[in-house]
Amino acid sequence: MSQRDALTCVQRVTRLNSHQLCDLCQLEDLVRTIDWADGAIELIDQTKLPSQVDIRRVTTIDDLITDIQRLAVRGAPALGVAGALGVALLAQQREDRQELEEDASRLRAARPTAVNLSWGVDRAMKTVDSGPEAVLDEARTIRDEDIAACLSIGLYGADLMHDLIKRQSARIMTICNTGGLATVERGTALGVIQTIFEQGWLEEALPLETRPLLQGARLTTWELSQMGAPYRLMVDSAGPFLLSRGRADAVCIGADRITANGDTANKIGSFSLALAAQHAGIPFVVAAPESTIDMSTPDGEAITIEDRGPDEVAGFHGVRTAVPGAPTLNPAFDVTPHHLITAIVTDRRIVHPNQGETLSTVPFGSTRSV
Amino acid sequence: MSQRDALTCVQRVTRLNSHQLCDLCQLEDLVRTIDWADGAIELIDQTKLPSQVDIRRVTTIDDLITDIQRLAVRGAPALGVAGALGVALLAQQREDRQELEEDASRLRAARPTAVNLSWGVDRAMKTVDSGPEAVLDEARTIRDEDIAACLSIGLYGADLMHDLIKRQSARIMTICNTGGLATVERGTALGVIQTIFEQGWLEEALPLETRPLLQGARLTTWELSQMGAPYRLMVDSAGPFLLSRGRADAVCIGADRITANGDTANKIGSFSLALAAQHAGIPFVVAAPESTIDMSTPDGEAITIEDRGPDEVAGFHGVRTAVPGAPTLNPAFDVTPHHLITAIVTDRRIVHPNQGETLSTVPFGSTRSV
Repeated sequence: MSQRDALTCVQRVTRLNSHQLCDLCQLEDLVRTIDWADGAIELIDQTKLPSQVDIRRVTTIDDLITDIQRLAVRGAPALGVAGALGVALLAQQREDRQELEEDASRLRAARPTAVNLSWGVDRAMKTVDSGPEAVLDEARTIRDEDIAACLSIGLYGADLMHDLIKRQSARIMTICNTGGLATVERGTALGVIQTIFEQGWLEEALPLETRPLLQGARLTTWELSQMGAPYRLMVDSAGPFLLSRGRADAVCIGADRITANGDTANKIGSFSLALAAQHAGIPFVVAAPESTIDMSTPDGEAITIEDRGPDEVAGFHGVRTAVPGAPTLNPAFDVTPHHLITAIVTDRRIVHPNQGETLSTVPFGSTRSV
Repeated sequence: MSQRDALTCVQRVTRLNSHQLCDLCQLEDLVRTIDWADGAIELIDQTKLPSQVDIRRVTTIDDLITDIQRLAVRGAPALGVAGALGVALLAQQREDRQELEEDASRLRAARPTAVNLSWGVDRAMKTVDSGPEAVLDEARTIRDEDIAACLSIGLYGADLMHDLIKRQSARIMTICNTGGLATVERGTALGVIQTIFEQGWLEEALPLETRPLLQGARLTTWELSQMGAPYRLMVDSAGPFLLSRGRADAVCIGADRITANGDTANKIGSFSLALAAQHAGIPFVVAAPESTIDMSTPDGEAITIEDRGPDEVAGFHGVRTAVPGAPTLNPAFDVTPHHLITAIVTDRRIVHPNQGETLSTVPFGSTRSV
């Protein structure tokens, strides 16, 4: 495990896909959100950001499950890669097939809402019969596909926003962290914002802090600062009101699971932004890779919503905010019904659910790289 | 200044209007949120709750203005009393009329959104020509009127909820703190919830934590715990989604300013609850004394929204949550348009804005005490 100050090496995290040298440390090797290195999994411990970039080396499945549950690694696409790399780790360590399958089942269940985790586990498990190296190859393929998918999402998403937004520059509201830290190198919804920034027409990103775990405040402001992109942070409940006052041109969010009818599970707070976007008459866009689409779940009512218990709500970083023992409701996700969604942007297509388009009928396009 | 542990004497704060002895300390004298005692203002420093009940003695106008700005005393009705008591303090200390008027102007401007502060200052100022004792009498009258008004709001509100809610028990969502700590003795919206609890048909209160200053988590859970009322706390952005899933029967909020057309300024987050209540088909009720109604402001567009700067958003209790220097938007209040409001309950009447009723035409009833 190595530690670095958060103010160094940040280019390597947030501008990875361009494979530039880090402006500060001039190192060539990339630090990815999660990757395989020297026989183990390496991941950035996101609970330590923004004050510290701590690269954890994970050598056991139990540590990986713990890291997933405590959100050291999080974000639906990154969880897909974590699931596959976890199976690669198991394939090297478990000779008994039943033990391997039991551990894979525990890994699959580490978090219930995001479809990507179980998707990554299952895809890697299909290669187990071909041996550990084949599993690792599959996990690395999933990693590389994620990198390519996010680049493509950014390009599709920026073109879509150009069509949807009437002004010449874009003010885009977002929630949680959907940047490079939620994926392997480059983000989904924040990848769209990053692409627009790189194209020179981002007026302002408007991230919500995203209680209870403040991924927006802790991670998204850090990524935006490193990009040099203009932004203003706000508390979650300010988002809907500021939309009603015309302070944003669009909302763009990620997704943890998109069901067959287009209903979208994402970080708690997404639903209220969708309602407010509709009220304000501005577009509400979901950006996610095709792997987030779960055609086996018919609609949002069928999605399990994880309740993460009272500790996150009744305090923050050891500071108690409510009376001792205060009972809570703590849904980590909500579900936005498809009729509130202007467009779902993936790495291979754009679907317009509120115009009656469906995921089962809109054809796939190419994965874009330019 | 005296300090007491928060676990003692709490009955004296939360059940004041019934004038019971405190169950724990058996003292008869009341501790009010704000009051006049021995030639000065005494107030509970609400920034210290829930861990400590700290009674501050305020002897200068500058200290009072500072306490209002740092939210040691807050809540629209309590600010009305604070304004009047502040003028009473000035009337005893300032012989020069011009100085007195200048200080009163500073006090009036300590916070811009709530109408009650300037209302309390102005009403007390009208008695200045009759001498310091007359001003103090007027401030005490305002205090006593607040106590009576909140009792009446609770009774009107409970009857209204009984008519609006189809189930036999009530699950009521609320935001911020509108309890005894926002008034003098008994609350407005939380006073309605308290009355329903005392009448035996409160299934559950559902307070939102209310970022950035967490008045819901810090103050409302404390008051509900002291009442012994059932409740569950949640982050702000969970409220709209849980409404969409049928987890509450009504929303009841307070108000900082109600304009002539019924548009209501209240804590940031209120607007998103109103949108979600409409979407869920459940009633959205505003509970406030008549003094909160500002017929001189035509509508919500004319209300000044206080932006309280970056510190509250980028951290909490000394814990930094965002990158250093993160720019923010921090509107302390939002405006809910009247067409989203099922009813405005005051101490003297019930008005239904979304049915076309207006504040200028619905006649006043009596102030209820039973």
